[in-house]
Amino acid sequence: MPQISRTIQLVARPVGSPKPSDFRMVSLPLPDPEPGEVLLQMLWLSLDPYMRGRMAEGRSYAPPTPLGHPPPSEAVARVLHSNDSALAPGEIVLVYDAWRDHAVRKASDCQKLDPGLGPIQRVLGVLGMPGLTAWAGLKHIGQPRPGETLVVGAATGAVGSLVGQIARLGGARVVGVAGGPEKCRYATGMLGLDDCLDRHSPGLDARLAKACPDGIDVYFELTGGAVLQAALPLLNPFARIPVCGTIASYNATTPPPGPDQLPALLRLILTRSLIVRGFIVTEFEGYRPEFLTAMSGWLASGAISCREDITQGLENMVDAFTAMLEGRNFGKALVKLAD
Amino acid sequence: MPQISRTIQLVARPVGSPKPSDFRMVSLPLPDPEPGEVLLQMLWLSLDPYMRGRMAEGRSYAPPTPLGHPPPSEAVARVLHSNDSALAPGEIVLVYDAWRDHAVRKASDCQKLDPGLGPIQRVLGVLGMPGLTAWAGLKHIGQPRPGETLVVGAATGAVGSLVGQIARLGGARVVGVAGGPEKCRYATGMLGLDDCLDRHSPGLDARLAKACPDGIDVYFELTGGAVLQAALPLLNPFARIPVCGTIASYNATTPPPGPDQLPALLRLILTRSLIVRGFIVTEFEGYRPEFLTAMSGWLASGAISCREDITQGLENMVDAFTAMLEGRNFGKALVKLAD
Repeated sequence: MPQISRTIQLVARPVGSPKPSDFRMVSLPLPDPEPGEVLLQMLWLSLDPYMRGRMAEGRSYAPPTPLGHPPPSEAVARVLHSNDSALAPGEIVLVYDAWRDHAVRKASDCQKLDPGLGPIQRVLGVLGMPGLTAWAGLKHIGQPRPGETLVVGAATGAVGSLVGQIARLGGARVVGVAGGPEKCRYATGMLGLDDCLDRHSPGLDARLAKACPDGIDVYFELTGGAVLQAALPLLNPFARIPVCGTIASYNATTPPPGPDQLPALLRLILTRSLIVRGFIVTEFEGYRPEFLTAMSGWLASGAISCREDITQGLENMVDAFTAMLEGRNFGKALVKLAD
Repeated sequence: MPQISRTIQLVARPVGSPKPSDFRMVSLPLPDPEPGEVLLQMLWLSLDPYMRGRMAEGRSYAPPTPLGHPPPSEAVARVLHSNDSALAPGEIVLVYDAWRDHAVRKASDCQKLDPGLGPIQRVLGVLGMPGLTAWAGLKHIGQPRPGETLVVGAATGAVGSLVGQIARLGGARVVGVAGGPEKCRYATGMLGLDDCLDRHSPGLDARLAKACPDGIDVYFELTGGAVLQAALPLLNPFARIPVCGTIASYNATTPPPGPDQLPALLRLILTRSLIVRGFIVTEFEGYRPEFLTAMSGWLASGAISCREDITQGLENMVDAFTAMLEGRNFGKALVKLAD
């Protein structure tokens, strides 16, 4: 049985892009599992943009990660030792844990997984939080109707790739924005999007306008920044904007320079009767069974495909996190710790 | 029978606050009414903030007023001559017309009013467009629940005064913001608001925070500007923001200086799961009968009071319009042309 847990602690609040010195890898002694507890070996950790928000001070929808603690992460883990009849050694579980390779947790915090249902790490992506985020944001807020135009940035990312595919299945015309020609080819090829624009090429505003001749009915907000700026003038009356993330601004240290575009945005919201709705996936937890039924079916039929960007080893997790924030991942960002 | 119509034409697109030289009073010959048409004498014209938007170039929800034409206005008019069996001379009608004292219009454009139901000019305010705006924005977007806190700027204005009173009737705690101590006294006295803050006094942010110890659940946006800035940090999770007007910015000639607060607003929308929804009253036209039933009842029982700011004569209409944009009206802005 392992005696220590290798743990990545947050030791400084990142200013701008997180630096290696904002983190520290330590080896912490593992307590003996008490009754009702289990010893877990983490197999997969998830990297998701929301973690950046938790590294900053200040009010958000969840308290910040205290300095000296590991950032949070959903994890797929193996039970190494169990003091609870609900879990047996060798079983695979999903647990909301942290950036570390072993942990002692209550058995009741763990959700048993069936490894026979496919690659277990999918519960961190297409069958988990990012999947529910995309599905619920579309079904309950975006609500694209057949023939309507939906635009999504980060179109090959964990959430964006599912937003685009689900919207296409519902009959919407989908235009994605992604970073680089390879991602754009993947988006129009494997993901089946109607069009995908490279945000690294100049003239995004004009190219998006050309790609959306009937305007935009749903703008699924994952990025903020240049994609939002290009989308705003194209929004049709009664367009819906599910606001799920604004990754372009997560590393910002100060508000961008003027002019202040807030009054212009408000005026646009007014004159076009826009519906702008922020959401956190936990709001839709009650819909998880319905979501799992739908998504499992789409995966089984091949209607939806998913791609993973896998980093090996806890020691590379900080780099992988920084890369994801800068859009250098290609698919759902995962860290693999063990087979 | 009058042979001419005194008409105020828009002759220049206002830059900033509208100036007298942006308008011209002319006397235009009236055509003879054709079959199906009536000759109208305007008794009351309405002044509403949306008119400022029509004076500007550029895409809005309605085309701009062409130069050389009169700005639009809802009007209460008397039929002087009729070539249609549906209307008789002497009858009083509501008509969507323009800044002028006489007009020849199709009888089918006119809606007959019953002068026995109270002051006829109320169809331009509490029983008309501003009333429906307040009622529908609350019922269909703001949806304040008993005990929740609602904040509204322009709290003694045509729409704001009704928003506050209707929300109070539904059991919400209502904090208004208005310009000057006299308006604030009226808001907490006659209108029954729980509190009203003077936007001309310093420290609005801190005073609003103190007046909203449980945060804000509904921010009814009529003003933008300082009231919005004070309200944003106080918004609770799942707060609703009906965006109905942003009068503070209507006369702006350029976007305000930086920093650009748009990314911060998006982040707030995300982290607090805000619902920001622009609307134009025409969206809720189908609810007018339901609204009229409710509002007539409240007026009859004294549950809702209304106040009018009456300007006499077409020659004073431009000044009254400018005053309204600057918040110098006190109640629904109306122009009275004849008894």
